[in-house]
Parts: sequence; C-alpha cells; structure tokens
Amino acid sequence: MKKNIFYAQSGGVTPVINATASGIINSYLKNKKYFGKFFAGKNGIIGALNEELIDVEKENINQIKLLKSTPGGAFGSCRLKLKSPREFQRILDVFKAHNIGYFFYNGGGDSQDTTNKLNEYCKSQNYSLVCIGLPKTIDNDLSVTDNCPGFGSVAKYIAVSTYEASLDVQSMCQSSTKVFLLEVMGRHAGWLAASSGVLKSNKKDAPHIILFPEKTFVQESFLKKVKNTVNENGYCVIVASEGIKNSKNQFISDSGGKDSFGHAQLGGVAPILASLINKSLKYKVHWSVADYLQRAARHVASKIDVQQAYTLGMEAIKYAKIKKSGIMLTIDSKKSKKYSWSIGYTDLKNVANKEKRLPKKYISNDGYAITQSCRQYISNLINGEDYPKYKNGLPLYSKLRKILIKKKLDKFEL
Amino acid sequence: MKKNIFYAQSGGVTPVINATASGIINSYLKNKKYFGKFFAGKNGIIGALNEELIDVEKENINQIKLLKSTPGGAFGSCRLKLKSPREFQRILDVFKAHNIGYFFYNGGGDSQDTTNKLNEYCKSQNYSLVCIGLPKTIDNDLSVTDNCPGFGSVAKYIAVSTYEASLDVQSMCQSSTKVFLLEVMGRHAGWLAASSGVLKSNKKDAPHIILFPEKTFVQESFLKKVKNTVNENGYCVIVASEGIKNSKNQFISDSGGKDSFGHAQLGGVAPILASLINKSLKYKVHWSVADYLQRAARHVASKIDVQQAYTLGMEAIKYAKIKKSGIMLTIDSKKSKKYSWSIGYTDLKNVANKEKRLPKKYISNDGYAITQSCRQYISNLINGEDYPKYKNGLPLYSKLRKILIKKKLDKFEL
Repeated sequence: MKKNIFYAQSGGVTPVINATASGIINSYLKNKKYFGKFFAGKNGIIGALNEELIDVEKENINQIKLLKSTPGGAFGSCRLKLKSPREFQRILDVFKAHNIGYFFYNGGGDSQDTTNKLNEYCKSQNYSLVCIGLPKTIDNDLSVTDNCPGFGSVAKYIAVSTYEASLDVQSMCQSSTKVFLLEVMGRHAGWLAASSGVLKSNKKDAPHIILFPEKTFVQESFLKKVKNTVNENGYCVIVASEGIKNSKNQFISDSGGKDSFGHAQLGGVAPILASLINKSLKYKVHWSVADYLQRAARHVASKIDVQQAYTLGMEAIKYAKIKKSGIMLTIDSKKSKKYSWSIGYTDLKNVANKEKRLPKKYISNDGYAITQSCRQYISNLINGEDYPKYKNGLPLYSKLRKILIKKKLDKFEL
Repeated sequence: MKKNIFYAQSGGVTPVINATASGIINSYLKNKKYFGKFFAGKNGIIGALNEELIDVEKENINQIKLLKSTPGGAFGSCRLKLKSPREFQRILDVFKAHNIGYFFYNGGGDSQDTTNKLNEYCKSQNYSLVCIGLPKTIDNDLSVTDNCPGFGSVAKYIAVSTYEASLDVQSMCQSSTKVFLLEVMGRHAGWLAASSGVLKSNKKDAPHIILFPEKTFVQESFLKKVKNTVNENGYCVIVASEGIKNSKNQFISDSGGKDSFGHAQLGGVAPILASLINKSLKYKVHWSVADYLQRAARHVASKIDVQQAYTLGMEAIKYAKIKKSGIMLTIDSKKSKKYSWSIGYTDLKNVANKEKRLPKKYISNDGYAITQSCRQYISNLINGEDYPKYKNGLPLYSKLRKILIKKKLDKFEL
C-alpha cells in the first residue's frame, strides 16, 4: 500500500507560504501514482498531535489554484516547539494509524529543528518516514540557504511603502511633518529593515536612517543624525527594526510607560522613537507600525519570491520520490552577473536552530545604511510583480473547506 | 496677452492628487492656444506667498506622464490657512506680477474656503481671476460632491490590508495571536474605518469590530464584543479610526502615558486598545498603525479613483476656458443600478469649511459595522486596479526638477 503524505505549515506565516503549498500539491497531483493520499495538518503540527488531518483532495480545485496567490497559512499554522518524547511518540502513533510515509514541514529554524528531531525519533523507533524541511521565514535568517521564501515579498512591501511614504513627507515638510518613521519586523536580524535601503541611490534619498537590531541604539548620535538630515534635506525618513536595543541590551520597545488605563504599553518601537524626536527636536513626526500588514501583503508580492516558494514545493515531491530524508531544501544562487538560482538541499542538522543575522559587510560604517553589496542582494529578491486576481475591487484569495479525515485514535492532551 | 495659470496642491496629500495634476497639465497642453503659461506653486499656496512658481513646461515630458501614477504631492503641499488681508493682498501682488488669470486650488474643505475668500478678495479689488477648486481628501468629508478623489484608493488599501491581515491572524489563532487591530486615519469622519467593512459578507468575516469616530467608545461593550468574537470565531479583527473618543469627548489616543524617556506618548489609538485587550482579556494582540502608508499607497490604487482624479483635472481646463469662477468641481454619481459618474460643479460657498461625516444609515445598529448601503457606496469607489510601472522591483514614480521662474517682487515675511 502506497504511503500517504503529511504536510504542515509552521510559525509566523508569509505572503508566499501558500505558494509552496500550491507547488507541493500540484506536483503531488501530477505524481499521484507514487503516493497515497495528501493530508495537511490543521493548524500545523498541532493537527498531527490532535489527529486533525485535512483531506486536500476534498478541496475545490479552483480554490487550490488560488493558493499560489493567497497570503496567510491556508491550512492554519502554529507556534509550538515539540520537546517531549511523549509528543514525538504521539505523532508517530498518528502517522502509523494513517499510513503516513512522508512528512513535509514548512517553517523556520525552530521547525527545521523539529523535523530533524522527528527524523531521528522515527529512525530510533524503526519507523520509515521521509522527513523534508521546506524553508519559510520573512526574517531571512535561516542558514545555508541563500535566502528564505517570504523575505523577498515582505522586502518589496517595505521598499515600496518606504518609497511612497517618503514622497508624502517630502511634499509636506516645509510647513508640517518633518520626520516619518516606519517600524518593521525582524526582532533579531536586520534583513527586513535593510530592505528599505534598496531605494537609496544617493545620500539625499530616503531612507536617511535605518536602525538595525545588529547595532546598538545610541540616542545622542541618532538624534544628531535626524537633526542634520532635516537641516540638509528638509525631512527625514527612518526605518526601525522592532528589535533594536540600547547599550544595556534592553529592547527600546520595552521602554514604553503605562497608559491612562494603567496598563504597560505593548511593544512598538515607533511611538517611542517618535516621542523622543518630537520632544528633543520639536519636529512634527508621523509614524507607522506595519506589523501583520507587511507579513500578509500578498498584493505587492515579489515575482521571484513567489516562483522560488512554488518551486520549492514542486521539488519537495521529487526528493520524496527518491526517499531522500533528513534534509531541508535550499535556494542556491549562482555566482554570475545576472541573478539565477536553483533548488538544492542540506542536512537538517546544518540549519536546525541556527540564525543568520545581517553580515557586517552589509551595514555601512556609520551603522545607519546598507552597503552596495547588500543592495544588490536584496534587489535580486524583490524583482518582478505577481498580482493576485481581483473581483469587485478586492483580491480573490483561496477559501478552503478543510474537511478532516476520520479519527482512529483516542484524544491527546496537548 | 493671454493669462497664465497657477495651480497649487494643498493639505494632506493622497495617492491620486498627482493624477489630478496630470489631468490638468495634459488638458492645458492640448488647449495651449487659450492660455499663457502653466505655473505650479512650490509647496502649495506658500509658493504664491513666496513667489516660488514652478515652470511646468520645463519638466521632462516622461516625468509629467508618470505624474498620473505617482503618490505624494509632486509640486509640494502645505498646511496653511490664509487669514489676513495682508496674505490675500500678497497673493494678488504675485498674481499681478506674473499675469496669473487662473487659479486652481487642489485641496479639502479648508482649501475650498481659501479659494472662496481669494475669489471674493479679487472681486473686491477688481482683479479678474478665475478661481476653481478641485476636491481632494482621503477623508471623503467634503459636502456636495458624491465622493472625494483619494478616498477610493485609500479605502482600497484599507480593505485589502484588512483582508490580508485577517488571513494571517486566522492562521495563527489556535496557538498564538487572537486579536489583530488596525488603526486608520479619519480623525472626525469614519469613512476610512468604514472601508474595511466591504470585506464582510457574513457575521464570521473580518473585520469583526469597526470603531467609528461618530460613535462614543464604550470600554465595557467593546471588550465584551472582543471576547464574544474570539469565543465564537477563534480570533477577532478590529479596525479603529484614530479619532475615536470616550464619553467625556476625549480622544482615546490622548490616554497614552509617559515612556521611559519621560515623554508623553505621541498619538496612536492602536497600542492603547491593544494594551487594554491584552490586560483585560489576556489575549495575545498584534496591532498596526497604517498612517502615511495608507495615504501614499499608490501601488494599490483604485482605478475608478484614478480616473475620477484625472478627469477632474481635465474638466478644470474646460471650465477655465469659459471663465467659470467661484466653483468647486464635484463628482456626481447617477442613480442607476450600475455605478456611473460625471463631473459637475457647485458654488464654493456650499463646500467651504463644511464636513460630511458618515451618515447614521451607514452604521449598523450595534455601532460596530457598516450597513449594506454603505458597503455598496464604498465598493463602487474601490473598483478596478491601476498599477504603476515597475523597474528593478520598485515603482517608477515621477521625479520633477521644479525649476522656479524669476522673481519680480520683494521678499514676503510668512
């Protein structure tokens, strides 16, 4: 009897994680003779623990087609790091009960660690399971792979939004707002903050200041730079990573006070920096926190990012066919003048729980900008547009029915 | 000698104010034999006071073409309400010195008031000036006109962004974020907050709660509604206008406390509501403040909005040719099943300093949603896509040289 497939989405979602799902499902449908059925975990790996397996072939084929251009995680995702042998054994029990022979885990560093551990656990229990990790993270912080699917689209959103907002503040600066500040994601790695820098071809261009989590935030030099920029330029555009810290290694976002309800302010480095600038330099400041808007912005996705995410899904089936286990697929760029890439793979051990921060050579000497090599790296990944279809002014995004297969086991306490 | 034209952009800019500029310039170029030269005020009406007149024909024709798809205010805008006769007299002096016979003012309610006053002032001084107001505001709060250019595109941005972020939180809600909150502009009128509601075709759809400035914010009923929504639905999406107030008529955004730098928190209703929900209901909350991103988001403009903005500019020249003065052009929709519109006009007195808030019939009985008639009204205005051209992954936006003509008068103290 041919073995079934189990696919799960993991961690924070991206504009293109469903493109990977679309790629793997389409390739499965073309290679059906080699496999049994295709199940997706409802809400990621929780679906395996709860024995909630979505029967993908019960979905409407048009909705499956729309997956490639739909943001979010269509089957549901979760934040859950598996730790106990009890959990691994449960997954094994569920996989045995449903004849699962292939496990695809679509996630970031933590998820690759889980895939690796499950692979080891199954080996130790003499259960044959092909375990393949599929990279996904807007933070672009996975090692070995040249870049991560999801990053290119969010980078494009940030670059486009920074460009647009900079034209706005430029229009208004003589009599009104002098500073615009955008907070972007990337708590530990500055790849997303860096992506705003692709705009800049000379000193006068926005963004004038990028604040990276890799660099200590120094209030005095920051304020001096803001002031000089406004004096020279009339206005100043700042892009700040949510994860910037002061010299005591404290998150700046944690320095918010209590509001009038008596509650500690929740996160948000932008309002804190905006207050600092306004009170210290008396400039009118506008600020924006992109948060989920950036992570879900499929409407302005990068074409190259969508292609890579989709191809990763397609290739996963190829490796499953030859029963290659214990690997994560990677995007390998070629050293050539024109950007080109292909799909490779690496041992899960090489990527599990590792974090790739922005390298020093990508940050300018003053710490507030990116270098030309960084600009080139990011430019390659935001190239091309891949618009969703629209109906009545709104994007047509996939709506799945998520029909579960019948359970065979007892309930598991999470 | 044929009279020259003076065009100025005013107030907060929009994704399509340059489309109006593009329309009026293109129509001028086709009708050149009727007019002298075309000047644009550098930074709006400040350009008239400072005698800083941009010679539009010195711009590269390709950059003029790109204006139609460029956000921000390409000639610069300003926030300045003219009050003193000294200011009106200065404008008259500048207009006389440069043979200006036509004044087009592209702005909101305040600007229409200024246009009206300048029109009256010139009459009283026996100076013949054709004064025409061109509507512009993302807030959609001008009276007489059926809608305002700029609103449709920002409404589309908000509707699309809310839809996308709702898919994100829906994916994550079982094990992580339960509430997503988006703050949008519209300090006095709820049109932009309302625009998120076009998504919703049944009770379960996002957004689950819209907070309008027209409705008093009541903490208890709001928290109850959030809790019930999460219980029924697994997650809750909230869109809040920046201008919501409590029963004491205080802005909720003013209830932020001091941060660790000792500064009062600057604006932002989203972080305050997020803290309130988190502390009261213990849900993980994500929040976003769109701010300038929404107002500058030309990359996801509404096609109908761009068409209306452009056509307004074209029609302005038609009215100038017949020397129709003291009017603001309007967008008049026809009462028919399929949405259709045409350009009309109204006396400036009818629009100056008036504000059109969201009518009662557009807000649901519980105060947290829009009605079907509101949904239809907004749907008409977000229809169709009008993408900018892209190069190397970024939009191609217009870059003007803004070459000023030679000054003839003494300096004026602003």
